[in-house]
Amino acid sequence: MRLPDNPTTRPLSTAIAAIMLASTLGVGSATAQQLNDIRPAESPLVLESRGSFFVGGEQVERTDVEIGSLGPDDQITINQMYVEYMVPERAASVPVVMVHGATLSGKTYDTTPDGRMGWFEYFVREGHPVYVVDQIGRARSGFDQSVFNRVQAEEVPADEQPELLRLGDRFGAWTNFRFGPEPGQPFPDTQFPVEAAAELSKQSVPDLLGTSRATNPNWEALSDLALQLDGAVLLVHSQSGPYPLESAIIDATGIRAIVMVEPGTCNAEVHTDDEIATLAQTPMFILFGDHLAANTQLPGPSWEDRFNDCKAFKERIDAAQGDVRLLATADTGTRGNSHMMMMDENNLQIADLILAWIDEKVDR
Amino acid sequence: MRLPDNPTTRPLSTAIAAIMLASTLGVGSATAQQLNDIRPAESPLVLESRGSFFVGGEQVERTDVEIGSLGPDDQITINQMYVEYMVPERAASVPVVMVHGATLSGKTYDTTPDGRMGWFEYFVREGHPVYVVDQIGRARSGFDQSVFNRVQAEEVPADEQPELLRLGDRFGAWTNFRFGPEPGQPFPDTQFPVEAAAELSKQSVPDLLGTSRATNPNWEALSDLALQLDGAVLLVHSQSGPYPLESAIIDATGIRAIVMVEPGTCNAEVHTDDEIATLAQTPMFILFGDHLAANTQLPGPSWEDRFNDCKAFKERIDAAQGDVRLLATADTGTRGNSHMMMMDENNLQIADLILAWIDEKVDR
Repeated sequence: MRLPDNPTTRPLSTAIAAIMLASTLGVGSATAQQLNDIRPAESPLVLESRGSFFVGGEQVERTDVEIGSLGPDDQITINQMYVEYMVPERAASVPVVMVHGATLSGKTYDTTPDGRMGWFEYFVREGHPVYVVDQIGRARSGFDQSVFNRVQAEEVPADEQPELLRLGDRFGAWTNFRFGPEPGQPFPDTQFPVEAAAELSKQSVPDLLGTSRATNPNWEALSDLALQLDGAVLLVHSQSGPYPLESAIIDATGIRAIVMVEPGTCNAEVHTDDEIATLAQTPMFILFGDHLAANTQLPGPSWEDRFNDCKAFKERIDAAQGDVRLLATADTGTRGNSHMMMMDENNLQIADLILAWIDEKVDR
Repeated sequence: MRLPDNPTTRPLSTAIAAIMLASTLGVGSATAQQLNDIRPAESPLVLESRGSFFVGGEQVERTDVEIGSLGPDDQITINQMYVEYMVPERAASVPVVMVHGATLSGKTYDTTPDGRMGWFEYFVREGHPVYVVDQIGRARSGFDQSVFNRVQAEEVPADEQPELLRLGDRFGAWTNFRFGPEPGQPFPDTQFPVEAAAELSKQSVPDLLGTSRATNPNWEALSDLALQLDGAVLLVHSQSGPYPLESAIIDATGIRAIVMVEPGTCNAEVHTDDEIATLAQTPMFILFGDHLAANTQLPGPSWEDRFNDCKAFKERIDAAQGDVRLLATADTGTRGNSHMMMMDENNLQIADLILAWIDEKVDR
């Protein structure tokens, strides 16, 4: 069910709706998404299996204060990764592991904010077993609450607990994700379903690991998951963009290919030449959208800066005889893709680009 | 695919495995569940549709401190409820909404800790559209991080943030959930797959709403969801046991029936006679397991106390000409069911009890 190319500009009615939305943005209650807004699939989905499990985790001792007032000192598990999966009937293709970005969860890849099919289901319908994770320290993967309870009990100073970053609708999402140049004002050609921006807002989940960690337990968990799957493609987004590089340095055995969708960084200058030689063994596809030079209205690099970092990374990998495809979809004539391209109106067209690349690079 | 009744005692080998596990409980790293431990279904699952969405949510203004350091003051959404769903092909039965208990997530109803089919998929295979939620303030439903960041920035005292309760393995789970009389020691007839207790530990997610709230946003969200579904059964567990009572008092229109699996309380003395008259309009099934009088080794009521509270509640509803079935499975000869009966070895046998009751009480 590959779709024909979508038109690359959006209907005027959507832009008008977005402007009407913009005029009310910031006041009143969220537009409640009705169940009826969801557009059902045209054909049944036949699954060989589905379910969920955890990867990794370590048992640790915690005091009564740390686990909360229910009981005495006890043992808990931390750093486990929640994984939900669907395996299609007659799966003929390599498994794909999907990892979301900052202050989001695995919901990123499911039903879009405006009720269309997400990449989770679409990749399954295209024959791939798909494994969607919640990053460790977030959503269903849980987190170690100990430091928060120690702060609450005044055992340690307040600044020992991590700051909990949360996407704001106007700057964290709208301008940063390049829906438009100003909060509530879309780019005329935006592919993001801006009339459903309030639904994206509902997906925001703070990252409870904090951001100061030296090593990230997600790196090893992804490497382990790929091994358990006996080979998988790691498809990552934004914050998780560079994770597979670290996973591959830990153990690349299970990692058949890497797809980086608008990585927050490619860490072009971080790795040693030996590490680059290791990374050059795995084919990579790095994908950006449109309007990369837009002002995000936030501190930190622009998306153009991030693209250029990935370009520098590609040059190092190329020099080590590796195989990196780096693409801004706007350069192919497909205009208006946002940072959240798995939710964009043409999300299945973008998926088809990725599926074709996987077909080419990974043997069945 | 209704199953024959399971034997009511468990194989000796499992008890031995549990005792071996018990001897190592509390040391070392968690037993990593391998993907291969999951037992695949015997026949394909055919879905008309599946996906996820949110119910409710309100847009609120937050300061830069409250949303974290990424940007300026901004707007976020709070109190939205994540819902994942599957609708079987040729659904012929009433939708069922499943709500998990304290410091857990919707994972409760999916693949069991030892890799068997959970109630989410089983109810779908039995013809029901099923909607599994994450309670507001937890997992994929997210939470309002504002107070944590204000504490971290020393804008408010540390004790203004809620204590984050977390299930401990030995007392929060093993003794409290009645796997056995002492941590690591199972009841000889326990139905819980104690060899996989470390996997249950990985499901623990603190409740970030805190426990001191006067009204709980989950109550209205469940009432709204039942309305959107044009009629649904609310199936709740443990902490969420009493939620449907409040949902029905808010608006019972969509609530066709209530199934309370080991409710933490039935709030027998809380409601007015008028409220009881309202509640008496909805059929209810309240289900407990075995070993109710066991010492949980925690403060608070025993499970026998909780059963007796539900008995008093049933008496009030009966007096108002309502229809409540109250059952301890042990009284029917099925022994060893724990608090987590959706994960017990005979979980599908227990599901069949519930499915038969729904068939009897709710018109198709």
